[in-house]
Order: sequence, then C-alpha cells, then structure tokens
Amino acid sequence: MAAPGENLKINGDRLWDSIHEMAEIGPGIAGGSNRQTVTDEDGEGRRLFQKWCEEAGCSMGVDQMGTMFMTRPGTDPDALPVYVGSHLDTQPTGGRYDGVLGVLAGLEVVRTLNDLNIKTKHPIVVTNWTNEEGTRFAPAMMASGVFAGVLEQDDVYRHTDAQGKKFGDELERIGWKGDEEVGARRMKAFFELHIEQGPILEAEGKDIGVVTHGQGLRWIQCTITGKESHTGSTPMPMRRNAGRGLALVTELVHKIAMDNAPNAVGAIGHIDVYPNSRNIIPGKVVFTVDLRSHELDRLNAMVERLKAEAPALCESIGVSFECEIVGQFDPPEFDHGCVKAIRDAAERLGYSHMDIISGAGHDACWVNRVAPTAMVMCPCVDGLSHNEAEDISKEWAAAGADVLFHAVVETAEIVE
Amino acid sequence: MAAPGENLKINGDRLWDSIHEMAEIGPGIAGGSNRQTVTDEDGEGRRLFQKWCEEAGCSMGVDQMGTMFMTRPGTDPDALPVYVGSHLDTQPTGGRYDGVLGVLAGLEVVRTLNDLNIKTKHPIVVTNWTNEEGTRFAPAMMASGVFAGVLEQDDVYRHTDAQGKKFGDELERIGWKGDEEVGARRMKAFFELHIEQGPILEAEGKDIGVVTHGQGLRWIQCTITGKESHTGSTPMPMRRNAGRGLALVTELVHKIAMDNAPNAVGAIGHIDVYPNSRNIIPGKVVFTVDLRSHELDRLNAMVERLKAEAPALCESIGVSFECEIVGQFDPPEFDHGCVKAIRDAAERLGYSHMDIISGAGHDACWVNRVAPTAMVMCPCVDGLSHNEAEDISKEWAAAGADVLFHAVVETAEIVE
Repeated sequence: MAAPGENLKINGDRLWDSIHEMAEIGPGIAGGSNRQTVTDEDGEGRRLFQKWCEEAGCSMGVDQMGTMFMTRPGTDPDALPVYVGSHLDTQPTGGRYDGVLGVLAGLEVVRTLNDLNIKTKHPIVVTNWTNEEGTRFAPAMMASGVFAGVLEQDDVYRHTDAQGKKFGDELERIGWKGDEEVGARRMKAFFELHIEQGPILEAEGKDIGVVTHGQGLRWIQCTITGKESHTGSTPMPMRRNAGRGLALVTELVHKIAMDNAPNAVGAIGHIDVYPNSRNIIPGKVVFTVDLRSHELDRLNAMVERLKAEAPALCESIGVSFECEIVGQFDPPEFDHGCVKAIRDAAERLGYSHMDIISGAGHDACWVNRVAPTAMVMCPCVDGLSHNEAEDISKEWAAAGADVLFHAVVETAEIVE
Repeated sequence: MAAPGENLKINGDRLWDSIHEMAEIGPGIAGGSNRQTVTDEDGEGRRLFQKWCEEAGCSMGVDQMGTMFMTRPGTDPDALPVYVGSHLDTQPTGGRYDGVLGVLAGLEVVRTLNDLNIKTKHPIVVTNWTNEEGTRFAPAMMASGVFAGVLEQDDVYRHTDAQGKKFGDELERIGWKGDEEVGARRMKAFFELHIEQGPILEAEGKDIGVVTHGQGLRWIQCTITGKESHTGSTPMPMRRNAGRGLALVTELVHKIAMDNAPNAVGAIGHIDVYPNSRNIIPGKVVFTVDLRSHELDRLNAMVERLKAEAPALCESIGVSFECEIVGQFDPPEFDHGCVKAIRDAAERLGYSHMDIISGAGHDACWVNRVAPTAMVMCPCVDGLSHNEAEDISKEWAAAGADVLFHAVVETAEIVE
C-alpha cells in the first residue's frame, strides 16, 4: 500500500467550521446540540451533510435503517470500498463533537483528496450511522447493530419513544428510510474517529489514542430484599436494612474492579430504593452493576466473583441478594492491520500517541464483527461528554482527522 | 388516690366490636382502613364516635383544630379533668388499630365506669386528636402540636394536600372546625394507649409496654458531590463516585447507632441518586440520615460524630460531604407519676410488662410538654404498622385497655 506523505494534512479550519455549522441544527440550550435521532432536526442535519458530500462529488446510498453512505469513487470498479464515519445524532443535551467529528472528518478526508487531486484505487464511503445514541429509541448503536446482524431490523422498527411513536414510523416520516438491504455492503475496512469521552489522553498529554480494544460489558441488575420497617421503633439488631446491602455491594464492586486494575472498571449508576421514605428502613433496593473489561475471561470472572460474594455479604446482615444479567457485549478486539495503519499514521505525522481501550460503545464495535475495523480517538476537555459543555480544541480535531486521513488513504491505496 | 380493685376490667368484646365497626368507615382495599384526616370518611368516623360517647353520657367540645373532647363529668366541679385518647385518622393504607385503639379504649373506660356505676372526682375526657398521621397534610401530630404550642394554628390552616386544598378549608368543609381556643384546656393528666408499631413486646412476650420516654429525632439531609462520568471510559483512579460516598456514610450511620446501643437507632431511608443512569457514575447523591435516641446528650453527640467523620470519609475517596438538619425534636420524658400509675396498674392486674421507649412520634409526645402525660403500649404482630395487614389480638387490646382503665381511674380518683 502507498501511504500519503507526511506533509499531507487535512484543512483543520474547514473541518472546524463545518462542525460548528452542523451544531446550529438542533441547537442545545447551553451551547451544545439537541439533534436526536429521526427527529425533524436529524432530517435537517442529514440534508446538510448530503449537500456537502454531493458538492464534494459523492453519490448517496441510504439503507432501510436510514444509514447514509456517501461514496467517492475509486479507480478500480471491483475494489471493496474503505468506509469511514460515525453518527450525526446527539443526546438531548449533547455536545457538538460526539459522533459529528467522526462523520465530518470523513467528509474532510474526501475534501482534502479533492483539493490535492488524489485518486484512490478503492472507493471511500463516508458513513452516518442512524441512532448511535439510543437516547430516544433504545438501544444505542442501533443501525450498526442491525448492519452487523446483532439486532433485528423488524424488531427495532417497533421500538417506541416516550410518546409511543415507533422508530420505523419516525424514520419514514422524516423521509430517510432508504431502499438498500441493511448489512449487504462489503467493506475493505471501517475507520471511526471519535472523541475519547474519558480523561486519559488529556491527562497523559497525548494527541492521539490508538484504540486497540473496546471494553466488554455486563450489566447485572441486582435486587436486595430486606424488610420495610419504622426507622424509630425497630431495634438495631432486628433490622433487615436493604440500604446496608447496597452499601456493602457498592464497595464489593469497587474492590472487584480495583483487583482487576488497570483496565477493568466497575460501578453502580442506577439505584431505586423502596419505599424511599425518610422514616422507613429500605425494604428493597434495585440497582444495576456495570462491569467492564477488554479481556473476556477477566470480565466473566468479575461477574462470577460478584455472584459468589454478594449473597454472603448480604446474608451476613439479614438481607437477600438476587441478580440477573440484563445487558452484555463481549470485548471487541480491533483489526491488527487497521490498528497498525492508525498507529503508523500518528507516528508518521509526529503526533504523540498511545494505545487505548474504548470504555464506551461505538458503531465501530459492531462493525468490527463484519469488517476489519479500528478507531482513532482524540482528547476531550476534562473527559466530559453527553453534556452540552463537551469541548475539544481545533488542534485536537485536526490531529485526529489527519491520522484518520492517512489511515484511510493508505488503506484505499493512492493511485500514483 | 384510690385505685380500682384488681377484679375491675373493661369489656374486651365490646371494645373489639367497636374497633371493627369503626374500621368499616373508610374501608381499605386489603382489610385495613383509609380514613385520612378531614375527609368525608373522617367526618363519618367522628359522628359515629360522637354518637357512642353521647350514648355513654358524655358532652362534646370541639376546638378550632377539630379535636374532639368528650367529657364524662366528675363530682368536683373544680377538679382538673383526666384526659385519655389518641386519633381516629389513618394512613391511606392504614391498619385498624393505629390510633383507633387508643380513642375507643378511652370510650371503653367511660362505658365500664357506667356499667359499674363508678363516679370519679375528676372529669374524664375522651379525646380524638385531629391529623395525627400527617399523611394528607404535613406535619404529623398536627392538632396536638398546635395544642402544645409547637405549631402555629394559622400556619397549619394554610398547609395544602396534593390537590392543593387547604387544611383549614377542608376542616371547615367536613363541619368539624369547632369554637374552642386550641390549648386553652388544662389537664390533670393525659394517657394514651397505642399499639407498639415495633417488634419488641411481641419478641419479649410481654403484654404491656410502660412507655417511659420517646425517642428524640434528628433528620440530617446530606449531599455528597462527586463527578458525573461515563462508567466505561473513566479509569478507576480518576473516579469521584458519589455512590461510594453513600456506601461509606451508610455504614458510618450504622456504626454510630450500634456504638450507642441498646436504644439509639440510625438509618438512611430516603436516597436520590443523580443522574441515576446505568452507565453514568453518580455525580451527586442526596439522602436523609434518621438518628434517634431517648437521651438528648447522646442524640446530639451522634449528630456531631456524623458531622465530624463523614466529611473525612468522603474526602478519602474524592467526594465532598455537606449536611443540614431538616427535622428534629428532643426526646420527651414522660411524667414519673403517670408512668408509675401505668406500671402499678399492669402489676396489679397481673399482666407481664416492661419499660419501653417509643420509637415513633405520638400525640402524647406533644401533650407531654403542657401536661403530665404517659403512654401504654400493647404488642402488634411482627411489629407491622402503617400497613393494612397491621394486626393485634383481642387479648392484647383488652389488656392494654385494662391498664389504661386502672391508670385513668386511679388518677381521676374514685369517689367511694
């Protein structure tokens, strides 16, 4: 493969301007964006992206999940395309960069190739995956999940939002239900640039994260049952306080994660206390343990330890523990060749970089199941994301897009 | 004072029948009662109680808080009356005995005196305090609180229910806003029989609890602040997990209570987690610590220990702790003479008894501030109360009423 020269860089100003023009569609209330999937705002964002891509010479395909594929032709009609992209939908109080950076950096790759009049053997397809956020319609990474055969299209069409509207109906209503069979496309590779959504790169002072793995995940819904009773008239030795069970399991989860340092993590984010009254000892607490590791065996062992130790801990204070796994995916390991292309690009361009594991889920995690895939990450301020205050610098965005450009173009093969 | 003979007992069958006839007014959906304060059902219950009292020769006074005072005259027109009673209002899913037992046992005292043709020097006044439960209109023990000068009448008149209706308007609407100035009555003594609402008497196999103190209470609202962040992409050492702060403080509260055994208690009943999402580390947790002791110095020391130790515990895991007291009352110590009358009565009647501390609040706790007061408790099954499944035996009710009868009549002085 022919790699681009180290002097070839994307246009950081143009990328930055496009990002902020897109952010004006579905503006947030605090400087971010509210462009939730298959809303009118999503439709408007899609039309702007379509216009930019067509101005850059791309032709559009749309599949039955509404995913947009904007193709810059290659010179070899039989060569498999190289895909690049992310998602344009946002959280209700989302930032300007989550997803958008990856899509518009893909467009910037095409624009830069046009500027430099570079042809590639393989077509390059800039992709906007539908409903990555999963905030209006569960689950997250919906279209890429159907594409990878993990989710059922007919099933997710029926998923409803808080107003009872169906995903399939809303996709059709905004005019973006395409004709293409989902998952029919074959890819030479898929590259996704994304903000880290964590604090590591900034803390380490690195421009680029070379994503080698994603975290696998287990969501374990736990129910601790004690006995509701009056906080005043129940003697301490007769209490069966489910809230204390929560306390002990909270610390157990922390210990399990710490004992699997450095990359495993664990926490409890969602907690419902019953009856949740100031003067009633909790009789029941329902909560979800979130355990993650990029090593499958380790992840499963962490779950087994929780299942082994939590019941005895709870029994020791007179409450009972039950749990079930309500969400899971195994850790993706990204394609070695694609990962090397990203690491080599960062090296060639002189950007500081480090290998990193993606803690969050991304479209690339599903696409990785059906095509050679890798991800580039750039830092974000204070690790903040899913928040209107999400922030990155123009330089970080440009560095990430430069690395994406080099990896994509090397894989698509410059025609000399 | 002349005590009744040990052979004098109330009519347990009649008391039991009256309790269950009252329970049919505002019946619950599961065998209990729903006769919330100043509803139509409350009005109907009051009329039945009035009818029974008037049939027993009592005359009625009603104060401006709607509290009913049903007087059986004494022989000495200048002698201060002995008051006896509790409340007829219930929780929305209340039991048949909480409050009702104490009011109708007071009526049974009068009925038994009539049966036996006994006169007392001091009048006996059977009392139904308005809005003890505080379930429709906060706070609990409302009318007795105004009577004792703890609450302001004009203020509580303005308190609204969930539909925005004012307490004062509803009291007037059901026709039970009386003319008497609240708190103007002077009492020789006040006695209240109540179910324990806790498990101690049943567990100890005692017929009678001689209540010597009430628990004092402090409600301390605590806020632990960490940092919201993604459960996947935030490395363990960089987390500021407010949920772990909750865990540590939960165990601290337990330890503080256990270190002040046997009578002090502590727990956290109400917990709000923010943003309470499966994949976000809690950035903030707000909860209320409930600490109780019947010893004022001990209670204050428990609060000071929480304030001293919780911030350092939280700081050790990178979260901050703030708290403020949002509810409090100091522990009541009941009148030694009245308590002795109850203990002597139980002894004379041959009932097994023990001294006990009331963990819950009762009208007697407020009345104790303005008159010599004491309480009798009888067991309840499994300590269950504020629940339609609340249960006691006819024998327990009769034993409690017998002791009440002897204590009241001894205090009111039989005229030989």
